[in-house]
Amino acid sequence: LSATVDVAELIARHREGGGWAHLARALTAVENAPPWEVVPASGPPTHVVGVTGPPGAGKSTLTGRLIEGYGDAGARIAVLAVDPSSPLTGGAVLGDRIRMEESAQGREGVYVRSLASRGSAGAVAGATRNAVRLLEACEDFDVIVIETVGAGQTEISVASLADTVLFVTVPGLGDGVQADKAGIIEVADMLVVNKADRPGAAQTARDLRVAVGRAVPVLQTAALDGQGVDVLREALDARWTELSADGRLPELRAAREASEAAVVAEAWVRRCAERARDVTEEPAGDMRATVQRILREAAETWRTT
Amino acid sequence: LSATVDVAELIARHREGGGWAHLARALTAVENAPPWEVVPASGPPTHVVGVTGPPGAGKSTLTGRLIEGYGDAGARIAVLAVDPSSPLTGGAVLGDRIRMEESAQGREGVYVRSLASRGSAGAVAGATRNAVRLLEACEDFDVIVIETVGAGQTEISVASLADTVLFVTVPGLGDGVQADKAGIIEVADMLVVNKADRPGAAQTARDLRVAVGRAVPVLQTAALDGQGVDVLREALDARWTELSADGRLPELRAAREASEAAVVAEAWVRRCAERARDVTEEPAGDMRATVQRILREAAETWRTT
Repeated sequence: LSATVDVAELIARHREGGGWAHLARALTAVENAPPWEVVPASGPPTHVVGVTGPPGAGKSTLTGRLIEGYGDAGARIAVLAVDPSSPLTGGAVLGDRIRMEESAQGREGVYVRSLASRGSAGAVAGATRNAVRLLEACEDFDVIVIETVGAGQTEISVASLADTVLFVTVPGLGDGVQADKAGIIEVADMLVVNKADRPGAAQTARDLRVAVGRAVPVLQTAALDGQGVDVLREALDARWTELSADGRLPELRAAREASEAAVVAEAWVRRCAERARDVTEEPAGDMRATVQRILREAAETWRTT
Repeated sequence: LSATVDVAELIARHREGGGWAHLARALTAVENAPPWEVVPASGPPTHVVGVTGPPGAGKSTLTGRLIEGYGDAGARIAVLAVDPSSPLTGGAVLGDRIRMEESAQGREGVYVRSLASRGSAGAVAGATRNAVRLLEACEDFDVIVIETVGAGQTEISVASLADTVLFVTVPGLGDGVQADKAGIIEVADMLVVNKADRPGAAQTARDLRVAVGRAVPVLQTAALDGQGVDVLREALDARWTELSADGRLPELRAAREASEAAVVAEAWVRRCAERARDVTEEPAGDMRATVQRILREAAETWRTT
């Protein structure tokens, strides 16, 4: 398996200093890489925060405020804005993201990057995982934020890459929260009622507590004027300190890696099967034997370099 | 890999005569079987016709008329009504299916069966493929019809199991047809404008011809009063005769089997990965090595018995 990205070189060049050019190039490479590409993990773990929730919940505005908060506190922050559908997102999303980028502008140590990866949920999640690994390899950030555009199947698999999954909603989206019970809320580590200056915020927070059915912090923010964002940031940092201290982090990352490895293995099998179909000269045959041939070839051609 | 169904016994018992009980039991077994289960193909090939199209196109009514037509002509027909969502389908679909079952009632040599398989598109298609193989193994049918409820991703993968894919639509669903260009129409072998007694049928037929962009028969039927159904039946039989005579059938089935084998291989890898995760005692590690371990185990544990 040929690595698309020379991570060692990226790290070396990045450390030599001189802007984000090398990092940007490496991120473009993983964006376009096939779904079985695996960038090896390197460097000490950085806190990866996934920001997800329905469109219109103000995720980008909230992320912008986090950028400002971390920046003011002297921390360095990277943001991956993942858009699984296409570069052509709705104007609302785009507008929010522009505001987020304005928060980043002119701040040293802040890196904001859109990841316009297409394909299956697995492919998008794979590209995001590789991007996160590149950012970690830089050893230059205190926090890495993955921001999704919505809360669908692809977004769930992307947000699940984070050490801390933040589900953001707003007052009045309670029904949607109920309907979502089987989805993102189940993997959320923290719930945020944004636009909490609107009526019904306390009620939505209560509904969320009931819906989630387990002990998860529920916070309230009003990202537009920054209300509650410092508390959120403190809660995030506290969780990271806890995860690092109590030994849960290696366990959490190992479990995640195992399920990501499964997705990669499936992608590799699909690729081997497609290649096998192209070159096959056999007529119809025993399908179980064909399955065996595909599995054998997949196992033999996979190289752990 | 232990076969869920003893096909040899099924065939033997079925041939001994005495109703559909053994077949019904075998179909229930494949309905509930895991997605990597493969019922081996046996018996001479039977014409498998896939009937698909948007809800409301009258697929069940048309299938009912085909049952009557084939029955009157002395042919034996099996119908698999595949409902990938759940046993709780909308009332309209249910009503149509009841009418279809009325067409079958009291007719000897007609077998109608619902397949309420859940899960991914691959799992539903796998269960349907196994069900078709059981029906073929009976060597008791001249035609096997797979009817889907809609024309989504799962339905496309189900319909693609057929030797002849019939796309059914109605006048005025032209816009939907345009939108669908990337979907089911691309795999259709025959297009049917049903409810052709309604205004705009000829225009819809012309639109379909343009949309499909290749030489595919476009027929018009009014299934409710049986209009055009005989012509459709003749077209189906003619295609089957042609496929059998010109040597395309083995090629067609081999290609289908290859892509189904890929889906089975993926399902098996996923299963091995999940099992590996349960028993793993390693901490986080090299993800590429984990992928290798999953692939090796999948190849080694797959048995072609």
